[in-house]
Amino acid sequence: MGRLVLLLLLAFLMPGLAIPVPPALKALSNLHLSTSFTSRPSVVMKYSIHYIEQKIDHFGFKNDKTFNQRYLIADQHWRKEGGSILFYTGNEGDIIWFCNNTGFMWDVAEELKAMLVFAEHRYYGQSLPFGADSFRDSRHLNFLTSEQALADFAELIKHLKRTIPGAENQPVIALGGSYGGMLAAWFRMKYPHIVVGALAASAPIWQFEDIVPCGVFMKIVTTDFKRSGPNCSESIQSSWDAINRLTRNGTGMDWLSEALHLCTPLKNAQDVQHLKDWISETWVVCQYLKNPNLSDKKLLQNIFQALNVYYNYSGQARCLNMSETSTSSLGSLGWSYQACTEIVMPFCTNGIDDMFEPQPWDLKTFSDECFKQWGVKPRPSWITSMYGGKNISSHTNIIFSNGDLDPWSGGGVTKNITNTLVAIIIPEGAHHLDLRANSAFDPMTVLLARSLEVKYMKQWIRDFYASPRKKH
Amino acid sequence: MGRLVLLLLLAFLMPGLAIPVPPALKALSNLHLSTSFTSRPSVVMKYSIHYIEQKIDHFGFKNDKTFNQRYLIADQHWRKEGGSILFYTGNEGDIIWFCNNTGFMWDVAEELKAMLVFAEHRYYGQSLPFGADSFRDSRHLNFLTSEQALADFAELIKHLKRTIPGAENQPVIALGGSYGGMLAAWFRMKYPHIVVGALAASAPIWQFEDIVPCGVFMKIVTTDFKRSGPNCSESIQSSWDAINRLTRNGTGMDWLSEALHLCTPLKNAQDVQHLKDWISETWVVCQYLKNPNLSDKKLLQNIFQALNVYYNYSGQARCLNMSETSTSSLGSLGWSYQACTEIVMPFCTNGIDDMFEPQPWDLKTFSDECFKQWGVKPRPSWITSMYGGKNISSHTNIIFSNGDLDPWSGGGVTKNITNTLVAIIIPEGAHHLDLRANSAFDPMTVLLARSLEVKYMKQWIRDFYASPRKKH
Repeated sequence: MGRLVLLLLLAFLMPGLAIPVPPALKALSNLHLSTSFTSRPSVVMKYSIHYIEQKIDHFGFKNDKTFNQRYLIADQHWRKEGGSILFYTGNEGDIIWFCNNTGFMWDVAEELKAMLVFAEHRYYGQSLPFGADSFRDSRHLNFLTSEQALADFAELIKHLKRTIPGAENQPVIALGGSYGGMLAAWFRMKYPHIVVGALAASAPIWQFEDIVPCGVFMKIVTTDFKRSGPNCSESIQSSWDAINRLTRNGTGMDWLSEALHLCTPLKNAQDVQHLKDWISETWVVCQYLKNPNLSDKKLLQNIFQALNVYYNYSGQARCLNMSETSTSSLGSLGWSYQACTEIVMPFCTNGIDDMFEPQPWDLKTFSDECFKQWGVKPRPSWITSMYGGKNISSHTNIIFSNGDLDPWSGGGVTKNITNTLVAIIIPEGAHHLDLRANSAFDPMTVLLARSLEVKYMKQWIRDFYASPRKKH
Repeated sequence: MGRLVLLLLLAFLMPGLAIPVPPALKALSNLHLSTSFTSRPSVVMKYSIHYIEQKIDHFGFKNDKTFNQRYLIADQHWRKEGGSILFYTGNEGDIIWFCNNTGFMWDVAEELKAMLVFAEHRYYGQSLPFGADSFRDSRHLNFLTSEQALADFAELIKHLKRTIPGAENQPVIALGGSYGGMLAAWFRMKYPHIVVGALAASAPIWQFEDIVPCGVFMKIVTTDFKRSGPNCSESIQSSWDAINRLTRNGTGMDWLSEALHLCTPLKNAQDVQHLKDWISETWVVCQYLKNPNLSDKKLLQNIFQALNVYYNYSGQARCLNMSETSTSSLGSLGWSYQACTEIVMPFCTNGIDDMFEPQPWDLKTFSDECFKQWGVKPRPSWITSMYGGKNISSHTNIIFSNGDLDPWSGGGVTKNITNTLVAIIIPEGAHHLDLRANSAFDPMTVLLARSLEVKYMKQWIRDFYASPRKKH
């Protein structure tokens, strides 16, 4: 079970550049939604790389500067007759990474006679509106919003339809995972004239304001740990007090620094908090944590064993470096800005429903830190104004898929809203596992989810071809 | 019939500050959609005036400046039990003017137990983001877009629901005429979680790009003239060549200046073009124009009689001043900017289907003039990208009403798209006559249209109360 949990954790833990909100949950609000788990493709991925000139500001006319947005096209299986276009709404990272890790699209291309398009999100990968200056200050970052990204996608699809013979009269389906899944869903909501439907995988579109309880994420994490082995979550829960007790004095700090093989020894309360944050962010592998009732020292030695598996799997590291979390090919800087402006996701713990130290959601502190780092203040209610929160029933043709192990499912749509806004739950599923390539190790549940998704997409394509179409 | 035409003309002619595109159609692309015809209310209009602090830029985080948006509330007939909110999506002018001229809302308030809200469009009336500097340059004007205006409306409605006890769980219906009708329709398309439906009166949402032929507007104008009396349109058509022939030399220009009682005599070809533009913009009353086959001079003397009715109805003016067109309480400056950026409506004439000199739509010249005047260039295809052009069938609950005399109906939705995207045609109807207060002079057709509109709105309200509602 330990390996399952490790994979699970790798699959939803992608801490970016942590903004310095003090307590244990600081990094969560800044978590990347995407995964770092690279799966092996079952088909050969051959694509061509393209660039489209996009307006830096779609919503104003003063600034008429442009930048080059990167996108990838794979058309091996595309058919002009009765074909379709599957459009990945790129999220916070290099689009080639998403292209390589969205094997589902490659796997279904032939069946749907589909052209695959992967569009890079502005401010990530090579699609930098101001090149090296893109993250310099709030003035340069001002055009990093979901609305601008959706407008890029809309203009790109219009461009493809105008320039690729045979594409004009084909249905386009948006697909994405995580933040990319949110974008796919929002794209269908706001531009239904451009995409006939959306597959929004593991898209926590309700992890905003108080639409879902702020503790739901960590509660699911805790549940996952409970499922993964007896006493694991209890051991972690006990560890916080053990750390607190041991670090009341310098001797205890020294002991702990040595026990955990920390590269830099703990010196003060702030370092101790940093340690707890680091453990919270990274979590641990449960196989070493089967007895929560050990002495403080024994418990923490086991925590070291667990951390060591995560950070020192090669056995080469002499000590553990708390400034390291998991590696990332994703755009930490951009995501940190987005989390500080539009994508404000409240997280909290209470120590009762979850295995963490209690930590309320503190918007004020969060906002102050955002202002310090980026010179901007979050507008936590804007996403709800723009995209409707729970009131989305007038939209159509969106599949919301969620793995029930995935903590992000807590902010996702997990029940059908109407008969065209449907939820697919994948038992034992991790973060947007359904978008991955088919693999021999896939549980039956995810295979079923994928085939259901294909069934819906085929229906949308049929509906498109059955209805009279307009030029505009 | 002359009076009918005069009223008709007053009802769609609202030339703003003409931007100096040379030829005859110059002002059309800059026409205000709204009317200057003030009707007498049949009910007492009592409203309170309010202001809401709005972000100047909803779509970016760098600029967190705000301005006060004005809105009016009339709640005499509002009921907390089973009531509704009718929300006028203000267009290019002082909101008090629209409030006073949208008697329909006042007339139906009691029946729908409705609170009336009239929201002023940013950059018009008192809702100036930068006060007196709002129109200073393209930097200050950068936030004058339909998207920002819709976001203002969304935030205002959220604010009303949060702050007015009893409003939270009530359905909101958007209403508007002309550009306000376009906003009402677009508001329902983009924010269906905020408004349950929209009445879009005389909203030419398809008067963009080549969705409808650019000549359709002037063709309908010509048809109206034909209907209003024999030979009227033919007389006008003949007048252009008559002017051209007569003004080949100075004597002719002098004669014509005198015949038309112009305040400033014609001196050169440019003045002559200006004269033709001015006549095109203002048109004339048909009762003097019954014989197109007169001599040039006789014909032009009749044109003078017709112009004189329009401009000198009091008989006091000694001469006709070509720098005058109709008076306006609307925001010409703001509209001219909008026409130069997003709201780019192509107009043209061919002299065959219409009574005007042939004039193609010349985007290049138009764009150059816009750049000269405002430092911005139009993006004519943006509105279609954003609002879907003809591909709007996935939306629901929008009534598109059009008077068949109204030249703007050429760019409007005049056929049902689905059973919830419906068109209402008002025979003999002028520009959004249905939004006016009931009057004893109303033709039966407009009374029928209004009652059908009420029927749809009641259905939306019933549907709202019949369905489970969400907090967000």
